[in-house]
Amino acid sequence: MNPCEAYLAAKKTVIEAHLQQLLPVTEPAFAPLYKAMNYSLLAGGKRIRPILFLAALEALGKESSVYMDVACALECVHSYSLIHDDLPAMDNDDLRRGKPTNHRVFGEGMAILAGDGLLTFAFELLARQRVADAEKIGACIRVLAHAAGPAGMVGGQAYDLLSEGHGDIGTEGLKLMHRGKTGVIFEAVMSMAGILAAAPAAVRQVLQVYAEQLGLTFQITDDILDACGTEAELGKPVGSDVKNNKATYVTLFSLDKAKQLAQESAQQAVAAVAPLGASARFLRDLPEYLLVRVK
Amino acid sequence: MNPCEAYLAAKKTVIEAHLQQLLPVTEPAFAPLYKAMNYSLLAGGKRIRPILFLAALEALGKESSVYMDVACALECVHSYSLIHDDLPAMDNDDLRRGKPTNHRVFGEGMAILAGDGLLTFAFELLARQRVADAEKIGACIRVLAHAAGPAGMVGGQAYDLLSEGHGDIGTEGLKLMHRGKTGVIFEAVMSMAGILAAAPAAVRQVLQVYAEQLGLTFQITDDILDACGTEAELGKPVGSDVKNNKATYVTLFSLDKAKQLAQESAQQAVAAVAPLGASARFLRDLPEYLLVRVK
Repeated sequence: MNPCEAYLAAKKTVIEAHLQQLLPVTEPAFAPLYKAMNYSLLAGGKRIRPILFLAALEALGKESSVYMDVACALECVHSYSLIHDDLPAMDNDDLRRGKPTNHRVFGEGMAILAGDGLLTFAFELLARQRVADAEKIGACIRVLAHAAGPAGMVGGQAYDLLSEGHGDIGTEGLKLMHRGKTGVIFEAVMSMAGILAAAPAAVRQVLQVYAEQLGLTFQITDDILDACGTEAELGKPVGSDVKNNKATYVTLFSLDKAKQLAQESAQQAVAAVAPLGASARFLRDLPEYLLVRVK
Repeated sequence: MNPCEAYLAAKKTVIEAHLQQLLPVTEPAFAPLYKAMNYSLLAGGKRIRPILFLAALEALGKESSVYMDVACALECVHSYSLIHDDLPAMDNDDLRRGKPTNHRVFGEGMAILAGDGLLTFAFELLARQRVADAEKIGACIRVLAHAAGPAGMVGGQAYDLLSEGHGDIGTEGLKLMHRGKTGVIFEAVMSMAGILAAAPAAVRQVLQVYAEQLGLTFQITDDILDACGTEAELGKPVGSDVKNNKATYVTLFSLDKAKQLAQESAQQAVAAVAPLGASARFLRDLPEYLLVRVK
């Protein structure tokens, strides 16, 4: 296990331990809802958003462990988005991370509510924080809500929904959709770390460029995996993008060109955080690690 | 038009003017999402939550007009909850406020996203506020997210979903469901006004009792209207609770008993705010106004 993999594994372990105790049932009559929320929240996954957040704080010289609640709020938002994306009215997926999707287990109505509950709880969790002053926490909420909302992630999802079945949205459309679905949250994660660490403007700018390029690497390698990976790697059937006639970097360009683009964005991400020095080692290693998945 | 009706009408007008300009389209590709969000947000309704919030601020001696964004955030949360409640997987309603429900116009996927967008935007709107210090705004976000989340409104909705088709949840079950679906938000509205006006603890307590009793009056009169009102009064078919075998104050008790309970809670609400004096006139008039609808 190289240092990047070791870092990912260690952080995943502490995040999952924290997630385990995040949503205790306070009202027994609401227990089925909490069960549905926890089912998806605790279903594994790479935990890349909270890990990135903790790693950025460490790169900025902060002790990251006091920010676990904030990290987990990011995972709650991610988990909500997956539950709603998988719904029959959206991507209609039966499997997620190798397990039946939320609505396949708990029914559609409960899955919608589990997503609603996770999203709302994320903001409660953030607003409860005392690890930074109220100004900084408020700024984090503003950044995350903007990124997750109609101008960001929900907008990207709506664009995806409307363009489904016509794979002809073009390069600009693809960028817009991917930025909305992945990039804006990566950028928000880095912004939040910058806010909480009171990083100077120049450093925040560095983190934004990193987030943007890393988001791109992440999305392109995901597209490549969907086209060429195995079901075991993906936790869901391969080729679902092609089946749904979805525009991806592989369908719009070619496999070779997609790999080249992923490499370019990974290099730019690495270059962006070079000035941060030794404390940013994981941030520098991560893009290469994402590339290895598709080599 | 009596003073209570005049107050309601005047506030509804300013709130709707404010809602009109709340969600401008910033990315043309996301315009269909904004259209779906605005469709429900601007579809009328009583606007009771934002009006209550503004009235509470005025009762506490505050100039309420600077808090319009906060008031509208409350309406965004309410509007999201209606869109999701109406979905086929939930109550499966075709009409809301006399108009086709969101999913009937825009499709189920877009309706889910419109709700997600409104909920997330509400928190962005709150976090953007500069009308109070960051501590107070943070406390408002905490209160609203808690009330709207899994321990509150989403929990109530999940309980409703699971108990549908068996009208035998009993008095405690009915109270739990109603508190979750209506009461907690009314209480949050009053809490938020108390926080922003920096009201003393005794006054906040008064507002909590008022919120609780008014919420009860509101819900019982709604149940009575569903059983006895006209389609024009309701904006949707009458008798839907009976049709869906839903527990209501009318089905669990009787029409006469429900009317008596509504009267009792209205009286308690009025009594609660008596100490607030002349500035609380609207808060004192409102319970009686709700009762008149079912007399």
